[in-house]
Amino acid sequence: MQREAMLTKPPRSLGRLEDLVAWLAHWQGHAPPRLNNVEILVFAGNHGVTRQGVSAYPAEVTVQMVANFAAGGAAINQLARTADAQLRVIPLTLDQPTADFTEQPALSEQEFLAAVATGCAAVSPDCDLVCLGEMGIGNTTAAAAIAAALFGGGGGRWVGRGTGVDDDGLARKRSVVDRALARHAAILDDPLAIAAAFGGRELAAILGAVLGARRQRIPVLLDGFVCTAAVAPLAKLRAEIITHTLAGHVSAEAGHRMLLEELGHDPLIDLDMRLGEASGAAVALLLLRAALACHTGMATFAEAGVSDKPADDGAQAPKAAG
Amino acid sequence: MQREAMLTKPPRSLGRLEDLVAWLAHWQGHAPPRLNNVEILVFAGNHGVTRQGVSAYPAEVTVQMVANFAAGGAAINQLARTADAQLRVIPLTLDQPTADFTEQPALSEQEFLAAVATGCAAVSPDCDLVCLGEMGIGNTTAAAAIAAALFGGGGGRWVGRGTGVDDDGLARKRSVVDRALARHAAILDDPLAIAAAFGGRELAAILGAVLGARRQRIPVLLDGFVCTAAVAPLAKLRAEIITHTLAGHVSAEAGHRMLLEELGHDPLIDLDMRLGEASGAAVALLLLRAALACHTGMATFAEAGVSDKPADDGAQAPKAAG
Repeated sequence: MQREAMLTKPPRSLGRLEDLVAWLAHWQGHAPPRLNNVEILVFAGNHGVTRQGVSAYPAEVTVQMVANFAAGGAAINQLARTADAQLRVIPLTLDQPTADFTEQPALSEQEFLAAVATGCAAVSPDCDLVCLGEMGIGNTTAAAAIAAALFGGGGGRWVGRGTGVDDDGLARKRSVVDRALARHAAILDDPLAIAAAFGGRELAAILGAVLGARRQRIPVLLDGFVCTAAVAPLAKLRAEIITHTLAGHVSAEAGHRMLLEELGHDPLIDLDMRLGEASGAAVALLLLRAALACHTGMATFAEAGVSDKPADDGAQAPKAAG
Repeated sequence: MQREAMLTKPPRSLGRLEDLVAWLAHWQGHAPPRLNNVEILVFAGNHGVTRQGVSAYPAEVTVQMVANFAAGGAAINQLARTADAQLRVIPLTLDQPTADFTEQPALSEQEFLAAVATGCAAVSPDCDLVCLGEMGIGNTTAAAAIAAALFGGGGGRWVGRGTGVDDDGLARKRSVVDRALARHAAILDDPLAIAAAFGGRELAAILGAVLGARRQRIPVLLDGFVCTAAVAPLAKLRAEIITHTLAGHVSAEAGHRMLLEELGHDPLIDLDMRLGEASGAAVALLLLRAALACHTGMATFAEAGVSDKPADDGAQAPKAAG
């Protein structure tokens, strides 16, 4: 990033905005990087574990919200337009929820791999950046179970209120996660088996999309707790496999900050959002656009006739400032 | 904000984005609020204290950067375009630096009030929001002196590297602030005298702009350390007088986070920026645009046919989730 050092500002004075440009350029393989074609992929799935009363909303809301995405009425529609990104919503057999993971694995190996393949194929080769998100009533319980299975600590550590369960609902979610961990104790050393046992199709698709983007060197902005939990099994297998991803934000959902710390991800924004739908990633995309605008649009010191020399003009101090 | 509660999302799931809309609506006095006409005001001034060797750049850079703003080559030009705001740069007698405040007050009362009046008059009555920022070689030293004078702790607590002084420069800045505090010890109980003694014309103009915006109920996004230090004397006089302002960001400049804590301001972003020029406020403006887009563009539950009822559909749990 030779250009960065010549721009009319003190070195490093744009802070992480400079890092974002360097990260984009690294993965895209060209400088300056581009954000001409940004896609927001929102995967939707239904979860058998909702039978346990773990959500403040009925499972039908998943399909209702997919219709709302199609009609342009959801938060992510407004954010995609604001951030000039293309929104694509990919529902994954919503009429066929996963199995209740307190009783058996949520997904068979075949179902899991099919959803991974769908996610992998959803990443367009001509994309400059992908924002990933999800919709699925019950999926903060799935995410908490994955996080607990990978990093320990049980439901008490990882379960939060999701869309807004009350205290009873919270206790029930914790107990559901703990029962599920006990039932699937035999597979807790296998990150991909964990992803299949506790995750849903939309989480598996996110995992697949991260792999698909990696193969094509497309940088990825992750959304909140569920999205991060979806890729955590990959990171557990091999930490470097998610270095092309950044955490768009840290959500208000209890486990997200801890999970980001486990993954070594430093989120770009921290605004107490907890909506999902890629909403945090889409807001973070605005920061990437700001960073790129500075990088490509600013004048260099030479172009602007601005001095980049150390101060030494008649300073009365014993020595000029460095 | 009746509308907010009906939008297709769990209550409070957009976190601070919801607060931002409520804050805008409160000060503008209408719902939904508007961001049709946003102005970024950058005030520029020169500082006699640069003679003490407190900056990494020569004082000529202030006027060179004002030319760069006019030519469209600075970071703030790119950020203003990205955030769809009108940039206005107001140079304040750059050929006439303030007095060196290690020797006498930087500004006479008359000079101070003239700059305050300029800032106050710069706020357009038809503006929906104002972002404030500054340019002035040497002004992080002025800001540190103001913060130290108002809140105690001396140069050691408040002085940072500004545009990038080395260790010698940092020690010199600290000593300059401590000497200045000693020289002006008699006025340290008078916030406005502090603003005149240590500040510069661009800081006084920012203070004036905050007053001008208040009078017209126009909300304000503040930028970094210098901008915050410029309004700190007002807050010290009467904390409620800055409730129409928000901190766009917390800068990497050492004293800014502490100063925001003193003022009770919780910054919107934290990206290690330290450029000034209203750059942090302009990036934060993007978040306000995202917030407003959600608020005005989202469908209500009724419009979208999405259930906002608690889950109670055949849940097998002993009690439906709340």
